Amino acid sequence: MLRIPSGKPVDLASYDARATPAGPSGKAEGLEATTRAGERLAGLQERLWAAATAGDRRRILLILQGMDTSGKGGTVKHVIGHFNPSGCRIKAFKEPTAEERGHPFLWRVTRALPQPGEIGIFDRSQYEDVLVARVRGLVPRRQLGGRYGQINRFEQTLAEDGVTVVKCFLHISYEEQRARLLGRLDNPDKHWKFSTGDIEDRLLWPDYQKAYEIALERCSTDAAPWYVVPADRKWYRNWAISRLLLEHLEALDPQYPKADFDVEESRERLLEIR
Amino acid sequence: MLRIPSGKPVDLASYDARATPAGPSGKAEGLEATTRAGERLAGLQERLWAAATAGDRRRILLILQGMDTSGKGGTVKHVIGHFNPSGCRIKAFKEPTAEERGHPFLWRVTRALPQPGEIGIFDRSQYEDVLVARVRGLVPRRQLGGRYGQINRFEQTLAEDGVTVVKCFLHISYEEQRARLLGRLDNPDKHWKFSTGDIEDRLLWPDYQKAYEIALERCSTDAAPWYVVPADRKWYRNWAISRLLLEHLEALDPQYPKADFDVEESRERLLEIR
Repeated sequence: MLRIPSGKPVDLASYDARATPAGPSGKAEGLEATTRAGERLAGLQERLWAAATAGDRRRILLILQGMDTSGKGGTVKHVIGHFNPSGCRIKAFKEPTAEERGHPFLWRVTRALPQPGEIGIFDRSQYEDVLVARVRGLVPRRQLGGRYGQINRFEQTLAEDGVTVVKCFLHISYEEQRARLLGRLDNPDKHWKFSTGDIEDRLLWPDYQKAYEIALERCSTDAAPWYVVPADRKWYRNWAISRLLLEHLEALDPQYPKADFDVEESRERLLEIR
Repeated sequence: MLRIPSGKPVDLASYDARATPAGPSGKAEGLEATTRAGERLAGLQERLWAAATAGDRRRILLILQGMDTSGKGGTVKHVIGHFNPSGCRIKAFKEPTAEERGHPFLWRVTRALPQPGEIGIFDRSQYEDVLVARVRGLVPRRQLGGRYGQINRFEQTLAEDGVTVVKCFLHISYEEQRARLLGRLDNPDKHWKFSTGDIEDRLLWPDYQKAYEIALERCSTDAAPWYVVPADRKWYRNWAISRLLLEHLEALDPQYPKADFDVEESRERLLEIR
C-alpha cells in the first residue's frame, strides 16, 4: 500500500492493481501473515478498549472506498473479523435516505463515528459525496468544490479529538472487475450481490477513476492520509490493510490502565465474604 | 441449555452451573464443535442477510443476561466472532444515561434492535429494568410489576415482525464468580475489568438470583422463551449458545433470493463492453 503525498496530482493508471509491494511472496504466505497479524490486532484492540475505560479518547476509523467488487465487504469479513466484534462500529453507507438528504452531507457520517476505544469501519463514507456526486452531477459544481475542504476540516477535527483516520482506496483493475462481476452472475448464490446498476457504473469507469484521483489529491492530508491498496489479489488486500491497521495501532501503543481501586483490599473482601 | 417453561416457578438452585447437558464430552471436543458450528453459523448468516436484500424481514436477537463475570462479553467474542461483523448489531447496555432515563425503559432498547437480515446481540437488555431495578429498588414496586407485561408485549410484537428472540441466562455459581473476580485481581492486565461495585453486587447475590427467577418465570413465553445456560465452563457456554443459534437459524432456513434481473442479458452486456 502506498501513501498518497499531500496535494500532488494522482494518476491511478500508474498504480498496478495486481502489485504486491512489501508483501508476502505469495498467497499461502499472505494468508498466514494475515492470520498472525489478526492475533496482534485483537490484542492491541483490547488494550485500546481498556484504555478508553480510563478516559483515553483515542480510536481508529478505517475508511474503505473503491469501485464495485473492489472488496470493501470482503475486507470487513476477513480483516475486521479478527477483532472482538463488541469493539467494532461498522457502518455501510448506502444511497442517502430522505432524512439524510435533509441534512448537510457530513451529518450521517458524524452519527456513525467510533466512540473512544473502538475501531470504526466505514464501508463507503463522506467521499461518496465527492465521487458519485461528481460523476452523476448530483450537486452543482460550486457546491461540490467546497466539499473537499469541508471534508479536510472535518477530518482534522477528528484527528484532534483522538481519531486515527486510515483511508484506503481499494484499487482494482477494469479487467478484474469484469471477472468478479461475471463470477457473481455465474453463481446463483451470488446473484443477490449483483445489480444492473453495477453495469451502469462500470460504463462510467473513467469518470469514477478521475473523481477518485481528485479526491485522493485534495484530501490526502497529514491529519488523514489516503493509501492506495492494490486489490486485484484479495490475499494481498487483506494483508495490506491488516498491516496498515497494525502499524497505526502499534504507534498508538495503548496501555492497560492501572487499577483505580485498592487491589489488595478488594482481594481480602472477596475472600472474606463467603 | 434448558428452555424455561412458561409461567412455572423457577428455582435456579436446581440448575447445576457446571453441568454440560447434551454437550460434547470435554473441553477439546467442545472447542472443536464450537468452531464447526461457527462455520455453519456464518453460512446461515449470509443467507439471512441475502434474503433481507429481497425483502425478508427476519432476523435474530440474542439477549445475554447473567451476573458479573458470567461471560456475556466472552460469548460475544467467541461465539459472535464467528459471524461476519457487518451483519451483527451489538449493543452493551450500561447504566441508563440522563437522556435514556427521560424516556420509557424500552426506548433505548428499541433503538438498538437488529434490522432485517441482521444478528442482534444485547449484552444486558430490557431485563436490567426488572433486575437491578428490583434489587436496588430503583422504581416503585407497582411500576416494576407492570414492566414484566410490558416486556412480554414488546417481545410479542418483535416476534410478529420477524424477530427470533433468543434469551440466554448465563448461569454461574457463587463459587465460580469468586474465582473469576479473584482472577481479574491477580492479573494487572485485567484490573480494568474489575470494579468495587462488583463486590457490592455480589453481596446482593441472593436478591439477584430471586430477581432472575421472577423474570424467567414471568417472561419465558412462546414468543420469546428463556434458556438457562450452565456457564461455569466457558467452553460449554460457548458451545451451548452456538448450538441454540444454529437451531434457530436452521429453523428459519433463509434462502438466497432469486435474481430480479435477466442474468443472461447482464452477462452479455458485461462481455460486450470492453
